[in-house]
Amino acid sequence: METVLRGRSSEVRIDSQGPVVMIGEKINPTGQKKLTEALKEDNYGYVKELAERQLEHGAHVLDINVGVPGLDEVALLPRIVKRIVSDFDVPLCLDSGNPEALAAGLKEVSGKPLVNSVNGEHDRLEAVLPLVKDRQAAVIGLTMDEQGIPTDPERRLAIAEKILNRAVQLGIPKQDVVIDTLVLTVGADQNAAKVTLRTIELVRERLGVNINLGASNVSFGLPDRQTINQAFMALAIGAGANCMITDPVKLARSILACDLILGRDPYGKRYIVSTRKRLA
Amino acid sequence: METVLRGRSSEVRIDSQGPVVMIGEKINPTGQKKLTEALKEDNYGYVKELAERQLEHGAHVLDINVGVPGLDEVALLPRIVKRIVSDFDVPLCLDSGNPEALAAGLKEVSGKPLVNSVNGEHDRLEAVLPLVKDRQAAVIGLTMDEQGIPTDPERRLAIAEKILNRAVQLGIPKQDVVIDTLVLTVGADQNAAKVTLRTIELVRERLGVNINLGASNVSFGLPDRQTINQAFMALAIGAGANCMITDPVKLARSILACDLILGRDPYGKRYIVSTRKRLA
Repeated sequence: METVLRGRSSEVRIDSQGPVVMIGEKINPTGQKKLTEALKEDNYGYVKELAERQLEHGAHVLDINVGVPGLDEVALLPRIVKRIVSDFDVPLCLDSGNPEALAAGLKEVSGKPLVNSVNGEHDRLEAVLPLVKDRQAAVIGLTMDEQGIPTDPERRLAIAEKILNRAVQLGIPKQDVVIDTLVLTVGADQNAAKVTLRTIELVRERLGVNINLGASNVSFGLPDRQTINQAFMALAIGAGANCMITDPVKLARSILACDLILGRDPYGKRYIVSTRKRLA
Repeated sequence: METVLRGRSSEVRIDSQGPVVMIGEKINPTGQKKLTEALKEDNYGYVKELAERQLEHGAHVLDINVGVPGLDEVALLPRIVKRIVSDFDVPLCLDSGNPEALAAGLKEVSGKPLVNSVNGEHDRLEAVLPLVKDRQAAVIGLTMDEQGIPTDPERRLAIAEKILNRAVQLGIPKQDVVIDTLVLTVGADQNAAKVTLRTIELVRERLGVNINLGASNVSFGLPDRQTINQAFMALAIGAGANCMITDPVKLARSILACDLILGRDPYGKRYIVSTRKRLA
């Protein structure tokens, strides 16, 4: 199964058999004071810096989230998208809880973006999937709904199936739906990551679509989060996740190492090049 | 399946469902000049230091290999074992290519040791398994034979089966055979680690015995070996390996993170304690 994303002229393929696609997560003001200030002051320079830095470290796609309380996301998202598109030829992942902001952002984006996200909630599906369809974009579907995030992998699978079915009904090709199986912190529930790993296996087996994951929630509230995130990503990739929303500065090399181990990096070329860059 | 190992009074269980057991690999002079010198000069102090350091960092078992060209291993192994046994109450893993040295070492060891190793070679099986049986020890079986290390997972499985069958014939309980599925460097063959991961799954499924792995060969000749070793260990643990011969100073925390992710570390207690120690 292949999900094709496009920038102005570039192309990125999320391929069930291929190497992991990394979506840089840093253009997101949640908990980032400096970016929050930059967005408030319309300081695009810092946003550009974050984009550059992530691409240098191996991001294939950039997530763009500009949700800051008090700012007009419907105006801001397209403005930032337009600037990023003129500076970088990379597929974007438009990330917003506001369907109007997504609609506005999709008007400015080039190529074929990823929309982040829908989930199993009826209203959300009906508001966002038509935008995805009209723009011929791809979409991330989160395995949660009105009742929250199920602790049972079969129930998460059922939500994934619901999202996929509705998307296909509306004319979105199956391969353009990427399922995010979600993860909560193992600090609160020792089974939190196990549920996610099992959901990945189920979605792979039963639906066959590509699987995205944000790796950093898993370690929330725990010490030395980096080591936990690395272990979780490797286990998730082993279970079948092939797209990661992550900080490539911190985690790209661990992901490249997984591809190397799994025979997706002939002669270790990508891994070796990334090591040289890091040492340079 | 449980493999029980014992020190003087301590006990370690390698349990298919339980956390990963770490065998400290550092008491092995191969490529270690300082240890080679120490063994030549009969400087036990340095050996003791290596033992202490590994135990502090979370080793559950200590591998003891004293093979230095020119030294009489048959005399040296029991001498070192005797000293370790008197200083540390920890199960030992006696590691030698020389059956006479193993026999001599086994006479000095307390509790229930692990013997490292047999493989599918007829002569090796017939020389070492009777020692294991007489001492009521456990044994590591490497999936290689007279023809070398197969590149086909089914053939590695067949060797594992051969070792297991012969051990059981001689009266060694099935649970006292731990299979090591071996790994070669991905720098030379991009499928090297994939074969190992697949062999782990097969051995788990078809034989049900515990699985040991040395993680460091996988990155031989490549830069930033630590990141590759971490990724490989996580993927191997995900596939079913539950015993690792490794350097706990470098890799224990990554292993503990895998246990945490896999729900084998309630409340993250072991992981948090190890972080505190590291920061102290």
